[in-house]
Amino acid sequence: MSTASGTEVEQDFLQTLIKHGHFLLTGEPGIYGRGEVFEDVRSRFDALVTLVGASDKPETPRFPPLIPKRTLEKSGYLESFPHLCGVVYSFAGNDAAALDLLERAHRSDNWSMHLAMTDVVLVPAACYPAYPAIALRGPLPERGVTLDLGGSYVFRNEPSGDPARLQIFHQREMVRIGEAEDVLGWRETWMTRARNIFEQCGLNATLDVASDPFFGRGGRLLSKSQREQRLKFEALVPIASPKPTAVSSFNFHQDHFGSAFGIQLHDGKVASSACVGFGLERITLALFRAHGIEIRDWPTKVRNRLWPEASRGT
Amino acid sequence: MSTASGTEVEQDFLQTLIKHGHFLLTGEPGIYGRGEVFEDVRSRFDALVTLVGASDKPETPRFPPLIPKRTLEKSGYLESFPHLCGVVYSFAGNDAAALDLLERAHRSDNWSMHLAMTDVVLVPAACYPAYPAIALRGPLPERGVTLDLGGSYVFRNEPSGDPARLQIFHQREMVRIGEAEDVLGWRETWMTRARNIFEQCGLNATLDVASDPFFGRGGRLLSKSQREQRLKFEALVPIASPKPTAVSSFNFHQDHFGSAFGIQLHDGKVASSACVGFGLERITLALFRAHGIEIRDWPTKVRNRLWPEASRGT
Repeated sequence: MSTASGTEVEQDFLQTLIKHGHFLLTGEPGIYGRGEVFEDVRSRFDALVTLVGASDKPETPRFPPLIPKRTLEKSGYLESFPHLCGVVYSFAGNDAAALDLLERAHRSDNWSMHLAMTDVVLVPAACYPAYPAIALRGPLPERGVTLDLGGSYVFRNEPSGDPARLQIFHQREMVRIGEAEDVLGWRETWMTRARNIFEQCGLNATLDVASDPFFGRGGRLLSKSQREQRLKFEALVPIASPKPTAVSSFNFHQDHFGSAFGIQLHDGKVASSACVGFGLERITLALFRAHGIEIRDWPTKVRNRLWPEASRGT
Repeated sequence: MSTASGTEVEQDFLQTLIKHGHFLLTGEPGIYGRGEVFEDVRSRFDALVTLVGASDKPETPRFPPLIPKRTLEKSGYLESFPHLCGVVYSFAGNDAAALDLLERAHRSDNWSMHLAMTDVVLVPAACYPAYPAIALRGPLPERGVTLDLGGSYVFRNEPSGDPARLQIFHQREMVRIGEAEDVLGWRETWMTRARNIFEQCGLNATLDVASDPFFGRGGRLLSKSQREQRLKFEALVPIASPKPTAVSSFNFHQDHFGSAFGIQLHDGKVASSACVGFGLERITLALFRAHGIEIRDWPTKVRNRLWPEASRGT
């Protein structure tokens, strides 16, 4: 992980992004506005993922970036990543408390004593809202379900000077819930699709077994076990940090979410699940890093793939 | 404002939305997933707003749903709406604290003592991130700036049983920053455009002077003054609550944000601003309410306006 201020290369890349209007500073590391050209690239890559996954005929529900606190509690996230969570607090005091809050805010003093936990938290991974929603429908159909959740905002409490490590970003996520072997086969299919997508975009991606940044002393063991069971794969691409950055992940959850949220197969057994995520801002940054800060300088092959209608001369 | 459980009509409408797959329950009032058909309508209305505003040639930056806490403190929001704010807390404790947090979460006990305020808050109105970003660029060009911020997620801490009162929703917002008379004229133009849009969509909208739900004992005076100065107009449409629901607003901020964030006109004077917002989920709900829960039953005129390519037979 990079430091709060970022390495020199990371800082340089951030300055370049700002100078060209791709990122807009907000005053907080990892929270940036995005310019028109950046957004065009991001949505074009998003559309390419849609195209590649269309043959799965997925359902396409959409979820907002907040979930009930209860969903987070049930999901197991607090066991693995309490340090990354985001819980929403608000104010429910009287006039006097509001006045004190305001005076403290004006002098940039701490006003947290006036806030209380609400019942909602930020979405930590785009697939979390989907599991309870699917469980509510009752047992799965025989072939399970495939979801394309679109590009959802997810939150990670990790302010960083690396422009590729955002506190809030678009995770483009697909989910498969069903029998373990179906789910694993689907993940395999997406690893092949992702290799092709990155190749077509001229990105030098390496797919490898990976592990999550589990919290605390027990975290190391969890990471080791996750690797040994090959539960997580990542696609890594060079961006600005010393090592290549993960831009995509392919996760087999076994029956973790099926058990946590009570998702049943058609025969009443507990369902397994897998998800595939593309970090859209990271991939957009990787494209600028690989091909140049101006799109007109990008290889024709890459431009034709992302803007196919332009290549057809319409 | 409606009650936490909603009126009978609101509850019925919510049940109808769920039954038809337009809303997906999450277990928390005001936080819903959205189905494919709902999202199609929402994005079609969004595209119609883009089309109508295109002649302004706006800049189109995009901002995530979090801003620095400092931006909220400077904006004046805490003075007017502390009860609606959303502040992000997270965990920075040790292994023992993490274990206690987890045990409390497992037994649905309070775990708030283990969390601390971060430096980020949820965006309360889509235009808030834009003001500091524009201020950073230095004095405005002579004709000011016009922004189209797209459909941004905004948060309001107001759990409600009314399906039209969400805790997080898409506010489609445009902003004009410049001389007061330009800004007021632009707001007037958008009020005319909005009347046309709603008429074309077959929505029975009433535009009227309005006020915000200011907090506390002083709130009444602030509302009165806001009305007297005609700073806020709203478009109101019948949805499910007893009174028509505000689906769009047209706000003149005078030099409030210009002063708060130091935005200067080309001549160094403080800039004025206005914003126009469309509540996309509310408008989508209003369309289902007005024309029927199945799109095939909607008036041809409305369908042709929202799906123009279908009406051209392509």
